[in-house]
Amino acid sequence: MIVALAGGVGGARLANGLAAVLPPEQLLIAVNTGDDFEHMSLTICPDIDTVTYTLAGLNDRARGWGVKDETWSFMDSVKKLGGPDWFALGDRDLAKHVLRTERLQQGESLSAITLDIARACGVAHPIVPMSDDAVRSIVITDEGEMAFQNYFVRRRCEPVFRGIRFEGADIARPSPALIAALADPQLEAVIICPSNPVLSIGPILAIPAIAKALCDCAAPCVAVSPFIGEEAVKGPAAKIMRELGIEPGAAALVSPYAGIVDGILCDLDDPAAGMTIDGVKMVATDTFMRDDAGQQRLARESIDFAVSLQRTV
Amino acid sequence: MIVALAGGVGGARLANGLAAVLPPEQLLIAVNTGDDFEHMSLTICPDIDTVTYTLAGLNDRARGWGVKDETWSFMDSVKKLGGPDWFALGDRDLAKHVLRTERLQQGESLSAITLDIARACGVAHPIVPMSDDAVRSIVITDEGEMAFQNYFVRRRCEPVFRGIRFEGADIARPSPALIAALADPQLEAVIICPSNPVLSIGPILAIPAIAKALCDCAAPCVAVSPFIGEEAVKGPAAKIMRELGIEPGAAALVSPYAGIVDGILCDLDDPAAGMTIDGVKMVATDTFMRDDAGQQRLARESIDFAVSLQRTV
Repeated sequence: MIVALAGGVGGARLANGLAAVLPPEQLLIAVNTGDDFEHMSLTICPDIDTVTYTLAGLNDRARGWGVKDETWSFMDSVKKLGGPDWFALGDRDLAKHVLRTERLQQGESLSAITLDIARACGVAHPIVPMSDDAVRSIVITDEGEMAFQNYFVRRRCEPVFRGIRFEGADIARPSPALIAALADPQLEAVIICPSNPVLSIGPILAIPAIAKALCDCAAPCVAVSPFIGEEAVKGPAAKIMRELGIEPGAAALVSPYAGIVDGILCDLDDPAAGMTIDGVKMVATDTFMRDDAGQQRLARESIDFAVSLQRTV
Repeated sequence: MIVALAGGVGGARLANGLAAVLPPEQLLIAVNTGDDFEHMSLTICPDIDTVTYTLAGLNDRARGWGVKDETWSFMDSVKKLGGPDWFALGDRDLAKHVLRTERLQQGESLSAITLDIARACGVAHPIVPMSDDAVRSIVITDEGEMAFQNYFVRRRCEPVFRGIRFEGADIARPSPALIAALADPQLEAVIICPSNPVLSIGPILAIPAIAKALCDCAAPCVAVSPFIGEEAVKGPAAKIMRELGIEPGAAALVSPYAGIVDGILCDLDDPAAGMTIDGVKMVATDTFMRDDAGQQRLARESIDFAVSLQRTV
């Protein structure tokens, strides 16, 4: 049994690799919901959708986000009606948001809705939100605080990043499935996918019961670095690190994942490759996932690395 | 100044004719909202949208409802996700529903939202909902009660019609613009468009303050019959009349519009043509609107007929 913690595109890719090499009953994918937001009366869960679309093979690989064979009539009409057009909602994608919002309003849990949507998309592996309670990431920038998607999409991460807080995380109840899996004696490893440690994994660790369960977990935990050299494969992780005065690279993961990870799988060119920092063993491999085969190779290497480790923390 | 009361497609056609022959400041179109419903977390206002699309020239004439150049990716995805597919929501159409729902949830009035949407679509003439408060038509059938769209769309009007009630109508506040127009000394005539008298005009008249204002109104009122011979041009009006034991035709309008109409413009073949029934004068013309010219001709004839009448009620 493996637990994977995932955020956006990079996390979805490794989760997809793990799903390809593990049967459904041996994998639980817990996903960040700090990026979730309410937009035009709809509850949007970008990371859950990215993971779901990727595992379903429905993701648009060329665009890098959203669903393939997408059409844009809705957005075209929203623009003509003077509505907000800064967050692109495809016609096909919209079905998820509308059905999810309806069920949330009827009092159903995000966990139940997420599982149903994933199953309807043909995904056999369980995908769960980190919590059924709303957690909303608020980015602190040189221009003041802004809701996550305002920073990330509307402002394209241009404001200088000063910090982040996770509204609701302190009182959010953790995903019951995640907590159960972390306490399961069958658990072999926890894999933190190559997602942004601050924006994507940060919200998950900000839920006290999840952080405690990860610290108390008997199984070894490995993080896969999202950095290739000094850049992130995708997204603003390197920019954010520099704005915080931290050198981008696998070593930058040690502090945010302190007490949780036993090892970090870093890129071949990472300056920390081969080192052990604060008890965390850094092992280098080709962390760039070019295709399905690359996802599966990295998935296998992550598992193999984790089970080779003694739990040190 | 002319006030038009309108429901669905037939009503929208005459309203469009009136808008073509009258400047915006001389026409107010008040629209039925009894068909409105909440579907998949969205508030849908079919009659307001039909009138708005028709006046904007955006209606799909071939299909008879919805917006032209429509695409259906959203519905395709809803079906794949196991969502409800009995009410077709086009991708372009959806923009209205989503933006409207958001603004309603923020506490804005349906009147303000409707005007804004109409303006964004290029409609200069004011379109107002009969009320900003929710009124929901419930159809009483041989199979029991059903929400209007369940009867109308989901069940295609197949259950036998026994009656209708308008939930919320008794406490609904009337459209302020409509009440002001009906009391305006400049008002020349009220035109009840050729909409279903029971399903489309019934909800408007069920709001006590509107019924009273129409009765007290100094200007003459003319209804245009939706019946051609013994059938309705569109929709279930004739079927409903028969199920109620009433002969379809202009004479069937006298009772539901009692105390309100002074005259009825009926089709050339209508058995009541040329008669006066309970003080209501029946004048025959070609009531079938084949095209824009037909809409404008019938609009002019309705106005001319109304202003020729003395207020008798």
